[in-house]
Amino acid sequence: MKRVWNFSAGPAVLPVEVLQKAADEMLNYENSGMSVMEMSHRSKVFEKIIKDAEKDLRKLMNIPENYKVLFLQGGGHLQFSMVPINLMKNKVADYIITGEWAVKAYKEAKKYLKANILASSEDKNFTYIPKLDNLAIDPDSDYVYICQNNTIYGTRFTELPNTLGKDLVSDMSSNILSEPVDVSKFALIFAGAQKNIGPAGTTIVIIREDLLRDDLPDFCPTMLGYKIHADKESMYNTPPTYGIYICGLVFKHLLENGGVEAMYEKNLAKAKILYDYLDNSKLFKGTVVKKDRSLMNVTFVTDSEDINNRFVKEATEAGFVNLKGHRSVGGMRASIYNAMPIEGVKALVEFMAEFERKILA
Amino acid sequence: MKRVWNFSAGPAVLPVEVLQKAADEMLNYENSGMSVMEMSHRSKVFEKIIKDAEKDLRKLMNIPENYKVLFLQGGGHLQFSMVPINLMKNKVADYIITGEWAVKAYKEAKKYLKANILASSEDKNFTYIPKLDNLAIDPDSDYVYICQNNTIYGTRFTELPNTLGKDLVSDMSSNILSEPVDVSKFALIFAGAQKNIGPAGTTIVIIREDLLRDDLPDFCPTMLGYKIHADKESMYNTPPTYGIYICGLVFKHLLENGGVEAMYEKNLAKAKILYDYLDNSKLFKGTVVKKDRSLMNVTFVTDSEDINNRFVKEATEAGFVNLKGHRSVGGMRASIYNAMPIEGVKALVEFMAEFERKILA
Repeated sequence: MKRVWNFSAGPAVLPVEVLQKAADEMLNYENSGMSVMEMSHRSKVFEKIIKDAEKDLRKLMNIPENYKVLFLQGGGHLQFSMVPINLMKNKVADYIITGEWAVKAYKEAKKYLKANILASSEDKNFTYIPKLDNLAIDPDSDYVYICQNNTIYGTRFTELPNTLGKDLVSDMSSNILSEPVDVSKFALIFAGAQKNIGPAGTTIVIIREDLLRDDLPDFCPTMLGYKIHADKESMYNTPPTYGIYICGLVFKHLLENGGVEAMYEKNLAKAKILYDYLDNSKLFKGTVVKKDRSLMNVTFVTDSEDINNRFVKEATEAGFVNLKGHRSVGGMRASIYNAMPIEGVKALVEFMAEFERKILA
Repeated sequence: MKRVWNFSAGPAVLPVEVLQKAADEMLNYENSGMSVMEMSHRSKVFEKIIKDAEKDLRKLMNIPENYKVLFLQGGGHLQFSMVPINLMKNKVADYIITGEWAVKAYKEAKKYLKANILASSEDKNFTYIPKLDNLAIDPDSDYVYICQNNTIYGTRFTELPNTLGKDLVSDMSSNILSEPVDVSKFALIFAGAQKNIGPAGTTIVIIREDLLRDDLPDFCPTMLGYKIHADKESMYNTPPTYGIYICGLVFKHLLENGGVEAMYEKNLAKAKILYDYLDNSKLFKGTVVKKDRSLMNVTFVTDSEDINNRFVKEATEAGFVNLKGHRSVGGMRASIYNAMPIEGVKALVEFMAEFERKILA
């Protein structure tokens, strides 16, 4: 069986050990006589799966006791609505605009409150992270919102904005579990699972308990209140059981392999290999300001659209797939999430170097 | 490997052939070099998976051209909100109350419009389906709402209400694909996948095109509009890719095994075996008015809570699992969805008969 090197931005590569375990257990999970897909979410065996997943995520991220962990549906897009609906009091919030997902979150928030643009890097096609000190935080702001790693543009926040004590909300869909974060600095963290965790269709929310409210606006659909999901421990309705199971397997796999610290070291090493090559290449170049480069999504181009296309085509044929960049940036993007082995990055760089020699010959 | 007979009300038993295929393809789907879980939802290979799933469902249910098929997230609970938000014009709707899920849908609708109770069987703990002719349909009604098979109580609609031309909305979560339905009689059909189709976390919506609207209420979260999902062919955001893949495998499995007509014959036969036994038993008895009995969820009791408990315990030990009834009904419930083989029902009846002999000896 030949597996490819999969640089997809998401849904994305998963640890092969996790997939193998899922395959082995597909017809009979731990002697239950059934697949995890076939289990009542109210059964003891599934209850252990979801409780273990939560416990392991708490351990991996060192989540404080006063935060709830929720397994929801709807992806980042539903969070773009749930965040303002659940967090608004003064009906003002501050958004830092660093890419398409932050823009979408901002536009959705404007349905519900006065959303300020606190800072933006749109002037240079989101190739950098704006300055984060001296931000004009609105005194009435209910929260400050960031998208911490920008999948499309290949940037990341290496420090957090000074919110002057206001609550910080972060979309961590593409960097969760890739680097250590101090959860206590955030009011709410959310992440679609499909980049660094598991299958699409499961959304992780980590929310400080004091933000859970009963007094939601009248129009709020019951499913869009965080508190009911927290009160029911993600079992208000049938959760995406199989997705949660796979997330749990990934969490265990990370714990067995040194946790987030070890992942971070590996991710730094992987990114360094790729960026070092780009910085020395005469054909390829990175698209992002060096200090703001993402560890997860490495965006790069050549000077020629034709050569870009030829590179993507030949790479695909050689088993390096999903390297085409997002249409907003063009060129190429290599997403190198936790589950991408260092060997995959080394092999990609070797292929790029060979391609470069050929083109520049 | 020993599989149990799984009578779970949902998530529920899936065809063993589907699970085996999913296991076989887990690390490398059709020579793509990756799992379906790892695929970009924008990739050609996944595009074929979702298009095939839609095409096969259209074939199975004979869905007319002027209906859209959507693969969404959030389960029935999110539909309880999406239906009124998307369908309201006069802000009046009529609900037929035949169980807990219809009650929840009705209560959610009351947030958005004047919801009338058109008929209810709550007076007898939902053990029957109310009379469906001469309903006092509101002249302003935007739609009439039913839950067509009541998972908890074990009833089903064997005919449709006379809506006097008003649009009919049906929650078919627990009967979709189990019996032929004329889709053209409905304005909107929805179903959580986790009973008769696939894994929890995928929701099927079949909606008549003229109901797709741009002029939704200002408060409507973008993710809760049907039209955007229809316009983007269920790809507005990352859909639950792996769940859709499993649904697709189930659809193909059904087509290969005679389609919905063949399932219906099999389901009639399975239900007859169980109900015939119940009607002749001196220990067990069905809880539902005969003419309204569900083909999918068979609810039954003995006269003694102790004997009920003993039965569930001994059945579990013998490999017949998830037979405990819902707390609202008590006793037992055997859910015998499409994927439950007739052998499973025969084996259960044999076990029940033996238990009865032992108790009455």
